[in-house]
Amino acid sequence: MKKERSYQKVIMKIYADNAATTKMSRTAIQSMLPYMDKVYGNPSSLYTIGQEAKEALEDARIRVAFCLGCDPKEITFTSGGSEADNMAIISAARLGERKGKKHIISTAFEHHAVLHTLNKLKREGFDITLLDVHQNGLVTPEQVAEAIRPETCLVTIMYANNEIGTIQPIAEIGKVCREKGVTFHTDAVQAVGHLPIDVQEQNIDMLSLSAHKFHGPKGIGALYVKRGIRLTNLIEGGAQERGKRAGTENVPAIMGMAAAMEEAVQNMDANTKKLVAMRDRLIEGLSQIPYSELNGDAVCRLPGNVNFCFEGIEGESLLLLLDDKGISASSGSACTSGSLDPSHVLLAIGRPHEVAHGSLRLSIGEDITEEEIDYMIKSVAEVVEYLRNMSPLWKDLVSGKRQHIFLK
Amino acid sequence: MKKERSYQKVIMKIYADNAATTKMSRTAIQSMLPYMDKVYGNPSSLYTIGQEAKEALEDARIRVAFCLGCDPKEITFTSGGSEADNMAIISAARLGERKGKKHIISTAFEHHAVLHTLNKLKREGFDITLLDVHQNGLVTPEQVAEAIRPETCLVTIMYANNEIGTIQPIAEIGKVCREKGVTFHTDAVQAVGHLPIDVQEQNIDMLSLSAHKFHGPKGIGALYVKRGIRLTNLIEGGAQERGKRAGTENVPAIMGMAAAMEEAVQNMDANTKKLVAMRDRLIEGLSQIPYSELNGDAVCRLPGNVNFCFEGIEGESLLLLLDDKGISASSGSACTSGSLDPSHVLLAIGRPHEVAHGSLRLSIGEDITEEEIDYMIKSVAEVVEYLRNMSPLWKDLVSGKRQHIFLK
Repeated sequence: MKKERSYQKVIMKIYADNAATTKMSRTAIQSMLPYMDKVYGNPSSLYTIGQEAKEALEDARIRVAFCLGCDPKEITFTSGGSEADNMAIISAARLGERKGKKHIISTAFEHHAVLHTLNKLKREGFDITLLDVHQNGLVTPEQVAEAIRPETCLVTIMYANNEIGTIQPIAEIGKVCREKGVTFHTDAVQAVGHLPIDVQEQNIDMLSLSAHKFHGPKGIGALYVKRGIRLTNLIEGGAQERGKRAGTENVPAIMGMAAAMEEAVQNMDANTKKLVAMRDRLIEGLSQIPYSELNGDAVCRLPGNVNFCFEGIEGESLLLLLDDKGISASSGSACTSGSLDPSHVLLAIGRPHEVAHGSLRLSIGEDITEEEIDYMIKSVAEVVEYLRNMSPLWKDLVSGKRQHIFLK
Repeated sequence: MKKERSYQKVIMKIYADNAATTKMSRTAIQSMLPYMDKVYGNPSSLYTIGQEAKEALEDARIRVAFCLGCDPKEITFTSGGSEADNMAIISAARLGERKGKKHIISTAFEHHAVLHTLNKLKREGFDITLLDVHQNGLVTPEQVAEAIRPETCLVTIMYANNEIGTIQPIAEIGKVCREKGVTFHTDAVQAVGHLPIDVQEQNIDMLSLSAHKFHGPKGIGALYVKRGIRLTNLIEGGAQERGKRAGTENVPAIMGMAAAMEEAVQNMDANTKKLVAMRDRLIEGLSQIPYSELNGDAVCRLPGNVNFCFEGIEGESLLLLLDDKGISASSGSACTSGSLDPSHVLLAIGRPHEVAHGSLRLSIGEDITEEEIDYMIKSVAEVVEYLRNMSPLWKDLVSGKRQHIFLK
C-alpha cells in the first residue's frame, strides 16, 4: 500500500498557479521561433528582413486589437502588465494635472503595479481615493459614481482580481466614468484571454494586459489607449511605438503574444465551460474542510480561480507541503511572496490578519482533469489537518481559548 | 553572362546591420527554450518549478556579472538598453537633485535613449552640457575634466557609438569622474559582447547593455549599478529585482542573454581578429569610391563597424538598391529611420547636411566572408555610381557649379 501511494505521489504533478504565470502554448512558441532565427531584422530598418519584421509586428497589432475590439493604432506594446499599468496611470495623471485635476479613484485591492504608482502620485500631491471592497470582493458602479468629483482625472479599477479572482462590473463602471467625463483604466492582466472583452462595449478608455497570463511569453504586454488620450513616455529614446515607447520592438514575443491571445479567445467558450465545472468541484471539495471559507464571490469570479482561507494555518507551510505532493500553488500574488505581511487583498475584503495568513490560491489551467481536482482536494485536506495538529493557534481554537472566525 | 549574374544576385544574402540587431545564436535560442515550456514557473513562487526558475535567474545574474567584472547584486535586469539608459540617468539625476546638484555632462552624439532622457531633465530644470565630439568621433578625458563643476551629478558617455562605431576612452573618463567624485554612466549597448569590459578597472559606476546586440534575444537588457548608488524605479509594482524593477522576470530571455554574453566573451579574441581584418578590407575597398570618406576614427572603432559618407547620394535610395542586391544595410541608427533629418551623430562630427544625408553603415557579423566583403564593395560602388548618374546634385558637383566637400 505504502509503495503505491508514494508512486502516485511522484506521478501527480499539478501546476495550479496559472494566475502567477502560465506554461507557454505550443502555438505561441512556434509563432516566436521564426522571428528569433529567420526574420530577426529590426522593424525600423528599410531592407527586406527588417520590413518583414515590421509587417509581422503590425499584423500582430491588428490581431491583438481585434481580440479587444479596438483599432490597431490604439495598441502600444510594452514589456508587460506592470509597465502598461504604470504608463496608463502616469499618462492620465499628467493629462489631469494640466487641467488642475489631481484626484484619482481606485480600489484597495488593486495589484501593486497600480497601488505603488498611485502612491508615487500621492507623494507628488495627487489625492487618491481607494474604494472599499465589499466582502464578496466586488465594488459597485454606485461607489464609483459617488466618489467622482469635478477634479477626478482617472478611475482605475482592475478587471479581475489576481488573488481572489472576482470580476468587477467593468462595463457599468465604464459607463459611469463616461457619463461623468472621467478617463477609465482597467488592469485586465488576469482577464484578457480568460473573459470576453470589448473595450468599446465596455466603455474602457485604457486597458493593460500581459501575455504570460494566457500562455504567451513573459516580458511582453500591451496597453490599449483610446484614441485622443495622449500617452506620457516612461522610456525615452527611439521613435518606436509612434514615439511613445522606445526600444527595439520585441518582435518574437509580440508574435507569441498575438498567437496566444487568438488561441485563448478562440477556445474561450469551451475552456470556460470546463474550467467553471472543475473550479466548482474544487470549491465544493475544499468547503468540506472544517473552518475554511472561499474568498470572493462564488459566481462572479474567474473560471480558473479558487482561493480559500483556513483557520489555524500558516500559508507558507501549506504551500511547501503541497509542493511535496506535486502541487504548485500560492498563497496569493507571486509578486509579493517573500513578504511577511498578509495579503492586502484579503485584508481589503475584511479577512482578519490571522485568517489572511492562512490563504491558498489554486488557479487551475485548461488541461486540468477531474482526477487532479480530487487529488488536490484530498491533498489540501490532509495537509491542513497535519498542520493544524502541530499548530498552537489551532489548539487554542479547539480548546476554546480563542474564538473561531468561521462558523464551521 | 547575364544569367550567371542574376544567379549570383539571388544567392548572395548579406546581413550587414548587426549594429541594429543581430540574429540570435543557436546557443541563445537553446538556452531559452527549456524556460518557455518546462521551467516556466514564476521565480517569485515558493514551489519547485518556481524555485528552479529563480535559481536559473540568479545563475544568469552571476554569469552576466562575471562578464562585466562586477558583483551579481549590482545587476538589474531590464527590458532592454533603452530602459537601462533611462533608469541610470533618472536615478543619478534624482540622487543629484537631493544634494542640489543639477548639472549633467554628456556628448552631442549619444543614442536618443540618453539624449531624450536628458531633454526631459532639462525641461525639469537640469543644466545639460553636451561635449563637442571631435571630427574623428572621439571625446577626451580632458574635455570631461574641464566640464565638471561642483554641481555635476552625472557624466554619461557612450562606450562605442552606434552609428560610426568609435570607441571612447572609457577607463580614462571614468578615472576623471572618480577623482572628482562624479557618477559615471556609460551606454555600452554597442560595446558589450564586442569589446572587453571590466567595470572596476574601467571606473564605471553604471553601464547599460542590450542582449539583441550580441546575438541574444530582443526585449531584454541589464543595468550594472555600482553598490551604494540608489536606483529610482521607472516601473512600480511587485518586489522583483530587489524592488527596483517590477514585473514578472523574463526568465527565458534572461537565460538567452546570459548564454549569448558568455559566448560572445569567450569568442571575442577570435571574432575581433577576424572582424578587424574584414572591416579594414571593406574600408579599403569603399575608400576607392571617388568622393567618399570614412566616418569616425579608422582604428579606434568597433571591430564590425564601417560607416561612409558619399557625396551626391541620398542614403535611402542607396539602401533600397543594396537591398535589391541582397545586402541589408542602414544609413545609421534604426531607431531614427523614417525621420528625414540627417543623423545627429554625423552632424556632431562636423559633416555638413548634404553629406550626412549620403551615409551608409555596414555593421558586419562574425560569419562574414572575404567573398561577401568583396561583393559588398563591388555592389556599393555600382549603386553609388548609378545613383550619382541620376543625381542633379552630383551633376552640379561635376560641372563645378557646387564645390566638392571631400578632396577626392
